[in-house]
Amino acid sequence: MCRFLAYAGAPLLLSDLLYRPLNSLIMQSYDAKERPEPLNGDGFGVGWYVQDIDPTPCVQRATTPAWANRNLQNLAFKTRASHVFAHVRAASPGMAVMEANVHPFAYDRFMWMHNGAVADFHKIRRRLREGLRDEFYDMIAGTTDSEHAFALFLNNLHASFDDVTPEKMRAALVETIRQLDGLTRATGITLPSYYNFAVTDGNTTVVSRYCSTADTPGASLHYSRGRRFECGADGVCDMHAVAEGAHARAVIISSERLTADAEDYPDVPDNHTITVMPDSTIKLEPIET
Amino acid sequence: MCRFLAYAGAPLLLSDLLYRPLNSLIMQSYDAKERPEPLNGDGFGVGWYVQDIDPTPCVQRATTPAWANRNLQNLAFKTRASHVFAHVRAASPGMAVMEANVHPFAYDRFMWMHNGAVADFHKIRRRLREGLRDEFYDMIAGTTDSEHAFALFLNNLHASFDDVTPEKMRAALVETIRQLDGLTRATGITLPSYYNFAVTDGNTTVVSRYCSTADTPGASLHYSRGRRFECGADGVCDMHAVAEGAHARAVIISSERLTADAEDYPDVPDNHTITVMPDSTIKLEPIET
Amino acid sequence: MCRFLAYAGAPLLLSDLLYRPLNSLIMQSYDAKERPEPLNGDGFGVGWYVQDIDPTPCVQRATTPAWANRNLQNLAFKTRASHVFAHVRAASPGMAVMEANVHPFAYDRFMWMHNGAVADFHKIRRRLREGLRDEFYDMIAGTTDSEHAFALFLNNLHASFDDVTPEKMRAALVETIRQLDGLTRATGITLPSYYNFAVTDGNTTVVSRYCSTADTPGASLHYSRGRRFECGADGVCDMHAVAEGAHARAVIISSERLTADAEDYPDVPDNHTITVMPDSTIKLEPIET
Amino acid sequence: MCRFLAYAGAPLLLSDLLYRPLNSLIMQSYDAKERPEPLNGDGFGVGWYVQDIDPTPCVQRATTPAWANRNLQNLAFKTRASHVFAHVRAASPGMAVMEANVHPFAYDRFMWMHNGAVADFHKIRRRLREGLRDEFYDMIAGTTDSEHAFALFLNNLHASFDDVTPEKMRAALVETIRQLDGLTRATGITLPSYYNFAVTDGNTTVVSRYCSTADTPGASLHYSRGRRFECGADGVCDMHAVAEGAHARAVIISSERLTADAEDYPDVPDNHTITVMPDSTIKLEPIET
Repeated sequence: MCRFLAYAGAPLLLSDLLYRPLNSLIMQSYDAKERPEPLNGDGFGVGWYVQDIDPTPCVQRATTPAWANRNLQNLAFKTRASHVFAHVRAASPGMAVMEANVHPFAYDRFMWMHNGAVADFHKIRRRLREGLRDEFYDMIAGTTDSEHAFALFLNNLHASFDDVTPEKMRAALVETIRQLDGLTRATGITLPSYYNFAVTDGNTTVVSRYCSTADTPGASLHYSRGRRFECGADGVCDMHAVAEGAHARAVIISSERLTADAEDYPDVPDNHTITVMPDSTIKLEPIET
Repeated sequence: MCRFLAYAGAPLLLSDLLYRPLNSLIMQSYDAKERPEPLNGDGFGVGWYVQDIDPTPCVQRATTPAWANRNLQNLAFKTRASHVFAHVRAASPGMAVMEANVHPFAYDRFMWMHNGAVADFHKIRRRLREGLRDEFYDMIAGTTDSEHAFALFLNNLHASFDDVTPEKMRAALVETIRQLDGLTRATGITLPSYYNFAVTDGNTTVVSRYCSTADTPGASLHYSRGRRFECGADGVCDMHAVAEGAHARAVIISSERLTADAEDYPDVPDNHTITVMPDSTIKLEPIET
Repeated sequence: MCRFLAYAGAPLLLSDLLYRPLNSLIMQSYDAKERPEPLNGDGFGVGWYVQDIDPTPCVQRATTPAWANRNLQNLAFKTRASHVFAHVRAASPGMAVMEANVHPFAYDRFMWMHNGAVADFHKIRRRLREGLRDEFYDMIAGTTDSEHAFALFLNNLHASFDDVTPEKMRAALVETIRQLDGLTRATGITLPSYYNFAVTDGNTTVVSRYCSTADTPGASLHYSRGRRFECGADGVCDMHAVAEGAHARAVIISSERLTADAEDYPDVPDNHTITVMPDSTIKLEPIET
Repeated sequence: MCRFLAYAGAPLLLSDLLYRPLNSLIMQSYDAKERPEPLNGDGFGVGWYVQDIDPTPCVQRATTPAWANRNLQNLAFKTRASHVFAHVRAASPGMAVMEANVHPFAYDRFMWMHNGAVADFHKIRRRLREGLRDEFYDMIAGTTDSEHAFALFLNNLHASFDDVTPEKMRAALVETIRQLDGLTRATGITLPSYYNFAVTDGNTTVVSRYCSTADTPGASLHYSRGRRFECGADGVCDMHAVAEGAHARAVIISSERLTADAEDYPDVPDNHTITVMPDSTIKLEPIET
């Protein structure tokens, strides 16, 4: 089922997300709290943007466990970024542990992550692929449901990538969920599918929390916003509250709370998307399927 | 373009193929002699059969260079087998270095290797896949032309796997070449494609040497046969000649000569297959396309 | 703290130890039962002997988690052996995840594994090394306490390796524990050290269960013996009882019980060694320090 | 023998050193020009400084070939730095391919690389280690002569790290060479040793070119300086000349010329050090041994 987090806001040191919080993403790689299985040891990925060089993200991925990776650790303590995706993987049964299956997936300026699974994915894979334009058919390098969903998303962006708006990104994401629902339903799949998808273009971030079965809650998803997220010299990490009248400058969306302050990490409501706009404001909207 | 070798015959120690000959496959991983680029450092694989346990092969693959792999070395000096495939990879430009792209590919009792490339493969990939039955469509885990050709081969085996004969294996291999020729021709691809394919079911081995362009020689391919292939305590490796009236018990088919004795390693003729029958006799037959 | 198992007896398929039991070693790599932390994901190793080829073991090691390793899985289902060591690692804090730190360690005909840790090892490392003969000083390739203990053991074998007897192996192992106790005591280290060591020469296996602090139990260690250990087509794995008057032919010594039948896996008593003689008889002897 | 490069000067994109020049370091990983063996495929490392975060370097290392590493490629095209070390490794015979053996080595604010080898290193290793203070004895994680030479260098820095000056760095480097010469001479080693060492603290860089045998030239070493080093949109990489009266702002020191302009890459004279001062001026000084 994996664990992920997305950050958007004022530049922060990656280690303040990945290593230093009590329930950091690295901690979640071997001791996740909000899923029955604590282990997410089948690889990890992290991506961020260096907008003054290039609009495409810098992605680092590996199939080895995040907790033991010294390259990741060295980088995280030396890199600041304002849009960050990070993911630790628990491979679904039968899905190979190989680099092409590690999130985040990247294409052009976009990054994509998934926490969840398409039930009986192998039954819909061929039909899903048949509907793709060649560019996105050819883009798929691995075998995961997650990457195939990314191809659907890109296929749904009817704009050229340069014209992408927050509205178009969200619409393409919701359309992807609808198509997956359609494909599984048409194939007679009744098991629940979980679609916590996250996508960013380096300016806007959209994340969904969704389960295909009406009465089943989606996989855990939280958000946190404030003036700044920071880990002090004392090792305490905090989302600092926004002063009255001031503006939030930092948003974290993550499978798990990073710290013990539950009130800092409300749930994203079931069957909703959360959008972080380029100015760091957020929108919670129901998924109309 | 890669380098490979296939062995069929009396059980021999894998190290006598992989490590000990002057021009062993490990040597070919960093200093190949019969191709312009000496380097085949994008991974390796080896597979063999333990028929008293199971008809499926034991395959070991890695994306790291063969020359530095201690696991491979330890295994090779401790393992005897009578049907062996081994391959060192030079990834074609654009083809990812990942385990799913490493030869030999295995499915049920079959192993498959390829030395060469389908020219402009990405232009025919989608059409090729569309013709596959679901079982073989779903089998494809990587992105190489080589694995897709293996799927075609399996799709062409109109027998159930239990009824496979040497004739049916060869016919399915030749049909695979024909289909690839048809697909590239229909797509207007005129660059030469190279189809040195090797397939075995643990009893019979068939290898092709073929180039799609009439006047271009196929990639190098040699064979060697005799009573036994062996490396002595003095480090000298030899294919021992068959005594008069006796029977060859050892056949090597390989991209390069393993030793300096050129006369021990005649060429497989261009546009031919070589078949090693279960009793170690061989057949050289032209490919009728 | 790691998990390990040693097998001695009639040849069995490695998968019957590593994959098929309910609490197989692979299961223990991500869900160990008899230690507080369930995870042993920092690499694995397995070694066995092919005595008709060579008296040195065939060792396969990797720094990646055992549960996702396809090479290990392929090998385990194709390999039979009569002396097997296997280990899944949980790196002690500060110990690098690198191949040279993965158990079993091998030298000449010996394999060595450790479950436990020398408390404050870095404080005694330099003195420990100073006492070694050059051959064993030079042998050390990694940084673990475990490999250094192996060097001590080899240094203690006052016989040439060809004259090694079960008694000499056990004496050298007990002497190693004594020396470690001496070194830590002399350095003022009072934290408990855990010395579950396993060593084999392919004929005899000796395993210790020991804690340096008088009243602290050693790390869990069980043994199981019978006529044969086997996993049936129904997936049930059993140590078959020895018929009256007959001889045990299979002995497992392991950190955890492989199956739920607790009575099949008695504890090795605290501060004892267990020796499996070449004829599969066992001896339990107190460690006299 | 390896290949390396060091850069000091105005911030540049790592890809302009590693990927884009005709004879980039990646090219040298599989097709080096100035050593008899073209292959340096036993891992790579790159390190740089982010001085506004921390005085210690950010190091990324891997044991896999540089040419196929996508993480390295992604990083190199997104990272700018003003002090860069990069190395592609050809493991000396008998030296393990493991991460702890990959250059650059880092400790506190220092990075260290080596191109060359201490002849018969195993004969002096134990004595070399005996002379180290505990801190640097304990620092050694791998088995290479190169890392042991780094430990000697650090041991020779009689200043605390905060007081390090260019003069003290150079003196400690020259002293290291002297000590190695003394150790090999005392052991009766007469084969030539090659000591192209590079060290930086993020402000000053010192590189030596040295062979222990009087009449043998050192391994190739070049330098290049100018106003700026840059790869244009046309793919051409140039060291731009300094305008009259202006100041050089970019210095490359490398085993091989990165471009075909031989006059841009004079040799560092044999048995000399080259020092790049914090203001980018350089000093060439003979090694007085």
